[in-house]
Amino acid sequence: MKILVLHGSSREGGNTEKLTNIALEGIPHTSIFLREKEIHAIEDKRHDPDGFQPVDDDYDEVIRAVLEHDILIFSTPIYWYGMSGLMKDFVDRWSQSLRDKRFNFKEAMSKKKAYVIITGGDQPRIKGLPLIQQFQYIFSFVDMPFAGYIIGEGNKPGEILNDRRALEEAKIFNESVKLIGM
Amino acid sequence: MKILVLHGSSREGGNTEKLTNIALEGIPHTSIFLREKEIHAIEDKRHDPDGFQPVDDDYDEVIRAVLEHDILIFSTPIYWYGMSGLMKDFVDRWSQSLRDKRFNFKEAMSKKKAYVIITGGDQPRIKGLPLIQQFQYIFSFVDMPFAGYIIGEGNKPGEILNDRRALEEAKIFNESVKLIGM
Amino acid sequence: MKILVLHGSSREGGNTEKLTNIALEGIPHTSIFLREKEIHAIEDKRHDPDGFQPVDDDYDEVIRAVLEHDILIFSTPIYWYGMSGLMKDFVDRWSQSLRDKRFNFKEAMSKKKAYVIITGGDQPRIKGLPLIQQFQYIFSFVDMPFAGYIIGEGNKPGEILNDRRALEEAKIFNESVKLIGM
Amino acid sequence: MKILVLHGSSREGGNTEKLTNIALEGIPHTSIFLREKEIHAIEDKRHDPDGFQPVDDDYDEVIRAVLEHDILIFSTPIYWYGMSGLMKDFVDRWSQSLRDKRFNFKEAMSKKKAYVIITGGDQPRIKGLPLIQQFQYIFSFVDMPFAGYIIGEGNKPGEILNDRRALEEAKIFNESVKLIGM
Repeated sequence: MKILVLHGSSREGGNTEKLTNIALEGIPHTSIFLREKEIHAIEDKRHDPDGFQPVDDDYDEVIRAVLEHDILIFSTPIYWYGMSGLMKDFVDRWSQSLRDKRFNFKEAMSKKKAYVIITGGDQPRIKGLPLIQQFQYIFSFVDMPFAGYIIGEGNKPGEILNDRRALEEAKIFNESVKLIGM
Repeated sequence: MKILVLHGSSREGGNTEKLTNIALEGIPHTSIFLREKEIHAIEDKRHDPDGFQPVDDDYDEVIRAVLEHDILIFSTPIYWYGMSGLMKDFVDRWSQSLRDKRFNFKEAMSKKKAYVIITGGDQPRIKGLPLIQQFQYIFSFVDMPFAGYIIGEGNKPGEILNDRRALEEAKIFNESVKLIGM
Repeated sequence: MKILVLHGSSREGGNTEKLTNIALEGIPHTSIFLREKEIHAIEDKRHDPDGFQPVDDDYDEVIRAVLEHDILIFSTPIYWYGMSGLMKDFVDRWSQSLRDKRFNFKEAMSKKKAYVIITGGDQPRIKGLPLIQQFQYIFSFVDMPFAGYIIGEGNKPGEILNDRRALEEAKIFNESVKLIGM
Repeated sequence: MKILVLHGSSREGGNTEKLTNIALEGIPHTSIFLREKEIHAIEDKRHDPDGFQPVDDDYDEVIRAVLEHDILIFSTPIYWYGMSGLMKDFVDRWSQSLRDKRFNFKEAMSKKKAYVIITGGDQPRIKGLPLIQQFQYIFSFVDMPFAGYIIGEGNKPGEILNDRRALEEAKIFNESVKLIGM
């Protein structure tokens, strides 16, 4: 059971990252920081006679890592009530992978499990709900079970450590992964 | 009353663009195609001692255009149940403008009106609702009235022309803008 | 193709009813006004050894009417951002019908189509969206296709007639039912 | 700081009630079981020349209890992806209280805090979100702060005791009420 964290934050060591690290303490996992990768926004070629063409950036490397893991953790700060643009640009590119003959993308994704960790400063447990619903539709499209989510509250650096509820949820997640692999 | 359309599609002449053009037929307006601009994903510097620094891309030009208009139309295909990454990267950068001493961004935005036009192929009138709710929170954050939205259905190029309901809504929008300026 | 309207309003001739009548002008249909029926709130007996027992009210009559029709129109004012309590009490009782050996309730419902007409006075096109999402989950539970919805705006009696968009949508619904039966 | 729990379940000792009891262990509070009260569905008289007339049921007694408390806990099982009809009938009647000259209902409510505890058997952390959003709009209408919510999972009697996350959240709620009164 291999775990991959996709970090959507544009900032190192932010609240979302801290919360994610607590959730994964002592658990082997791979981390990809999308801010360290060059991933272009999608160009929609679905209806182009030639279809999608290879793009010269890091998307391929990241999606290959996705395909090699069993549990995907989408960890993103809430930017303007959605996932970060960094993460959205990455997810948008799945449209390309769906048509990539090298993989059976949808089938591969359906065998994984997804988990979401988001934090925000403006009533995230209310105003983050459309984002949770969006993730639900995203995962459902590729038949990937949505195993759970944690919503944390924090604005200034480190504030997440005051959100006892989020910390407890991270701890429960941590123990359940250690015990039964989620 | 100056109208600006922010086009989020990565594809020329797609369904969203067609629907938007119908909504604006015969109405003077400015169009910005985000796919033609270079807008980097935000780097969150809110908590950096030096704050945000100037970024060498086209964001400044686009946000200046935004500030010079009275009605903003956010026109985006539904990509993975959200706005396109192109548009999300643009909106994320508002965090920078909120702290930009050259403008009084929030106050300026609060005097405008926002309208949303989205299209999608997978039950957009249901699965597009989290995106509408997200836009509501975005506009509400800058106190900009959310004047309305149109959700269109279409997947293959041109299919939007079969969505009579969306077309009627575009027509009503068109007439109300012509009559009273929305 | 038999059409049944379930009216959830507690008031005769209100905005929702007016909008529904416009949607159905010239189309044969049955109307049930839930306010004229006595339907008790459910008593949850799912886990009771004896299960649900017959209830002496009008629910049975109404659910039989539901089962005899092909298209169900749920027409309710938005009360406190949800369907009316009258309608909710009715829907809650479906839990009883699901276990009623006289019918194959779920299978029967899955062969129908559902349509929703709601009106409200407080930004219904935004604040009515959780209700649309709730209906989506309700219909999905019994595998009944959610064929569409109309959201109207109106507070004082008759105000719905000023909501041109809702009226157009009602007209489009009307024509599509006349043409192809929805 | 007086706490009132409004129980919306139609069943004694169900999962929602169990979870609520855990949240309130050792904390003095008043409980009202709506199933033990007779509360009629509202008749909308907002536009009636004579307005609302007194209704001969238990609503008045319950709303007086509401007005005498500082913290309101809305505890309801998720029935068909919404609050129970019992609770909805009660909330609908607030429209009457808003116009009741004996109280200044909205102002009184704005000084309280609301908390929501819901449980359900069908992916409640996803499919219960429209209900959370509905409560947000309800509380916001009367300017009552939405202090938090717990979503529990459970179908058969007692299953809630397996939902460790909900139990932890109940415990955190309990401790924070004991410490600072929420």
